[in-house]
Amino acid sequence: MSKAVVNVGIIGFGTVGSGTARIILQNGALIEKRTGKKIILKRIADLDIVRDRGVAVPPGVLTTDAYEIINDPSIDVVVELVGGIQPAKKFMLDALKQGKHVVTANKALLATKGHEIFKEAEAQGKSVGFEAAVAGGIPIIKVMREGLVANNILSIYGIINGTSNYILTRMTREGAPFEKVLEDAQDLGYAENDPTWDIEGIDTAHKLTLLASLSYGIPLSFDRIYKEGITAITPEDIAYASELGYKIKLLAIAKVVNSEIELRVHPTMLPEDSLISKVDDVLNAVYVIGDAVGETMYYGRGAGDMPTGSAVVSDIIDIASRGKGRCCSFLSAGPCGYTIKDSLDIETMYYFRFTVLDRPGVLSKISGVLGAHNISISAVIQKERREGEAVPLVVLTHRAKERDIVNAVKEIDTLPVIAAKTRFIRVEGKE
Amino acid sequence: MSKAVVNVGIIGFGTVGSGTARIILQNGALIEKRTGKKIILKRIADLDIVRDRGVAVPPGVLTTDAYEIINDPSIDVVVELVGGIQPAKKFMLDALKQGKHVVTANKALLATKGHEIFKEAEAQGKSVGFEAAVAGGIPIIKVMREGLVANNILSIYGIINGTSNYILTRMTREGAPFEKVLEDAQDLGYAENDPTWDIEGIDTAHKLTLLASLSYGIPLSFDRIYKEGITAITPEDIAYASELGYKIKLLAIAKVVNSEIELRVHPTMLPEDSLISKVDDVLNAVYVIGDAVGETMYYGRGAGDMPTGSAVVSDIIDIASRGKGRCCSFLSAGPCGYTIKDSLDIETMYYFRFTVLDRPGVLSKISGVLGAHNISISAVIQKERREGEAVPLVVLTHRAKERDIVNAVKEIDTLPVIAAKTRFIRVEGKE
Repeated sequence: MSKAVVNVGIIGFGTVGSGTARIILQNGALIEKRTGKKIILKRIADLDIVRDRGVAVPPGVLTTDAYEIINDPSIDVVVELVGGIQPAKKFMLDALKQGKHVVTANKALLATKGHEIFKEAEAQGKSVGFEAAVAGGIPIIKVMREGLVANNILSIYGIINGTSNYILTRMTREGAPFEKVLEDAQDLGYAENDPTWDIEGIDTAHKLTLLASLSYGIPLSFDRIYKEGITAITPEDIAYASELGYKIKLLAIAKVVNSEIELRVHPTMLPEDSLISKVDDVLNAVYVIGDAVGETMYYGRGAGDMPTGSAVVSDIIDIASRGKGRCCSFLSAGPCGYTIKDSLDIETMYYFRFTVLDRPGVLSKISGVLGAHNISISAVIQKERREGEAVPLVVLTHRAKERDIVNAVKEIDTLPVIAAKTRFIRVEGKE
Repeated sequence: MSKAVVNVGIIGFGTVGSGTARIILQNGALIEKRTGKKIILKRIADLDIVRDRGVAVPPGVLTTDAYEIINDPSIDVVVELVGGIQPAKKFMLDALKQGKHVVTANKALLATKGHEIFKEAEAQGKSVGFEAAVAGGIPIIKVMREGLVANNILSIYGIINGTSNYILTRMTREGAPFEKVLEDAQDLGYAENDPTWDIEGIDTAHKLTLLASLSYGIPLSFDRIYKEGITAITPEDIAYASELGYKIKLLAIAKVVNSEIELRVHPTMLPEDSLISKVDDVLNAVYVIGDAVGETMYYGRGAGDMPTGSAVVSDIIDIASRGKGRCCSFLSAGPCGYTIKDSLDIETMYYFRFTVLDRPGVLSKISGVLGAHNISISAVIQKERREGEAVPLVVLTHRAKERDIVNAVKEIDTLPVIAAKTRFIRVEGKE
C-alpha cells in the first residue's frame, strides 16, 4: 500500500498483543526514522479491557468490540492475536473482506484453515503476514521467502516448540522423568494447563505446515505430516543417546528426496556435535539447507510477548512498504511437482531400545529378525547382566526403511524373550 | 521497479560471478514460479572470457567491455563483482548514472567509499543491494533491515571472516602455530596470497562498518573501528583460554552503552558453552541482541561461489519486486543520536599472559599494579615453576576500562621481573 502512515488495530490484548502494543509505542519513532513509515496504534479490542498489561495505551484505544476495528474504514492493518480457530477465523475473513491487510501469529488457524484465508486475501488483493506464527522472533518466514529465494530448499530441521525443547533440555541435564519436568514447566508458565499440542508435536506440525508450503510451493498439508510427540521419551533413552554421541530433540523435518518430500515431526537423535543439538531451553532454531547457500541456521526465542511482537511489527512494516507483496503469494505459485512421501517410505537411521529377558542368544535372535527385514546394525549397547531378568538392549542401525522398521518391531515384540514393548527413535545427521 | 522481467548484467566473471550466473541459469524457473519475476542474464563482462567456469552461458552473453553492460539501455540491474576499489567504483557510479540499480558483494568499496555510491543512488532514485557483502549466503542485511526493524539493536557479535575462523579453529583443534595453519589455509585456497585483510581484521571491519550503519543509522565509520587481527594469537593462549572455559574467535563487535556505540574487531575469548563459540571452520555467524526480540543468531557460509551468489540473486529479486525499496535508505535516515566510543573508553573483561621471571613476590607486584589501575582479578593460572626462569602467568580480570588496562600493561612491562612483552585478549560473555 506504500503509505507513510499505517493505521493498525489489534484484536486480542494478551501476551503477544501487549508486546506488539509496547513495541509500537516504545520503538515507533525509531521505526519511522528507519523506514519512513509511521505506525498508528488506533484500536485494541479485547473482552477484558480492564486488566493492567503494563502498557500505557492512549485513552480511547481500547474496545471490547472487535468489529470496531474490522469495520473502521481508517484502519489499514488488522492484527489478529486472539488465537484458536473461532472467532479468529471470522475476524480475519471479515477484516480481509473490509479491504484490510491481516497480520497474525495464529499457526493453528493458518495450518488448518489457511486455504480459505489466503484465498480471500488473494481475492481482495490483500496480504496475510504470519512471521509471528513460526519461531516467534526469528524472521524465518522472511528468510525462507526472500533471503533464500534463489535456492531449492533441500531440507529443513526445526526446533520450533519451546515447551518441548525446555522439557527435553531439563530431562537431559537432570535425568528427570518427563512427567516431573512437565509439571515444573507448567508451574513456570512454560507449558499450558493442557499441554497436548506442545508435547504431542501438533504445534510443531502447524508451523512445519507453513514452512513447507512456503519452501516447496505445496498446499498446506497439516494432515499429511507424520506426528509423534515427546511423551514416551525416558531419561534412560536420553542417557543411551548421550552414550552413543547424540542428543534427543523434537524436530520438524522437511526433506526432499528426488521429487518427494518427507514431512515429519518426531523426537530425533542428533549428533551432539551438531550446532542445532546445542539449542537448549525454550530457544528455537531452524536449520535450512539450500542448494546454493548450503547449510544455514536461524536461532532465537520462539515465543514471548516482545519476541513475537517484534515479528508482528516487521510484518506491519512490510505491508506498509509494499502492500500486497510476497506475503501470501506462495499459495498461488501453482503446482510444484512435489508429492508428499508416505511416512512408511522414509529412510533414516534408528535407535532401538528392546527390553529383553537376559538369556543366551537374545541378541542373535533380534539381529536375525532385523537382518531379515534389511536392517543392519551399527552399534549395540548391552551392559547390565541379570540372568533371566528384563534388561535393556540398545541397538543403533544404519539407514533403513520405516516400513521395514515397523514390521521388524511387530515381529520382534512377539518373541518370548521380549519383556516389554520395543521403543525406537529416529536418528538424523551422521552417515 | 516491479517489472515481471528483470534484465541483469554481471561485471566480473570470477568466483561469485560464476555462482550467480549458475544460480540464475539453474534456478531461474523456480525463482520465477515463486516470485513472478523472470531474471534474464543478458551480459557478463570480464577481461577473460575464454576460461571455462563450468557454467553454460548462452552465446553472445560474454563481453570484455563492462560498458556494453553499463550503457545497455535494456539492462535494469548491474551486478558489480569485480572487487577492489577501482575500476569497481567507476563502474558502479556510471551504472547508477545510467539509471540502473546496482548489486554488489564489494564490502571494501562500500565500507570506505560507500557515501559517494549511496549518494549517487539516492540522487538517481536507484537501489544498491549489498546482501552479498556481509556474511555471504546468510541473509543478514535483510534480517537487520527488515526482520528486526522493530528493534533497538543492543549488540552485534559477528564471526564474519571465514579465513580467520578457519585458522583459529585449526589452531584450537591441533595446537598448531598461526604461521603453519596460515600456510595450510593458503594451500587449500581458504586464504589469499596476501592474507593481510583477512588476518588483520580489515575485512571483518569492512563488514562491521556496513552492519553498524544499517543497525544504528550512523555514517559509514570504517576509520573509527578499533581493529586488531589474529596474528599474535598463540597455541599457548588458546590452551589457557580453554582451561578457563573459553574459545578464541575473531569477532566484530557493535554494542550500545547508553547513547554510545562500541565498534571493535579483535580476537575475543568467548565462553565455550555459548552457541557462537561453536561456529567453526570457514563458517560465519552473526549473533544479534535486539531490545524486543532478545538474542538471535544467523549462521552459514560467508563466502564461496554459490552461497554468495544466493545473496546476489536475492538482492536482484528484491529490486525487481519493489524497486527503490529499503536498499539504501539507511544512509538517509538522518542523525541517529549515537556517537562512537573511543576505543580506550570501552569496558570489558581481560585475559593477560605475563611472561615473568619465576621469583617470589611476582604475583603480588603485578596484582599491585593492576589494583592501582582499578583492575580486579577473577582468576590466576601459574603452574610451571622454574626458579629464576621466564614462565607464563595468566590472569583473568573482572570488568575493567581499556584505558586502565593499557596504562597498567605499560607500567608492568617496565618491571624487572617481566621477561617479555605482556599479551592481553579481551573477554566477552560472562559476568
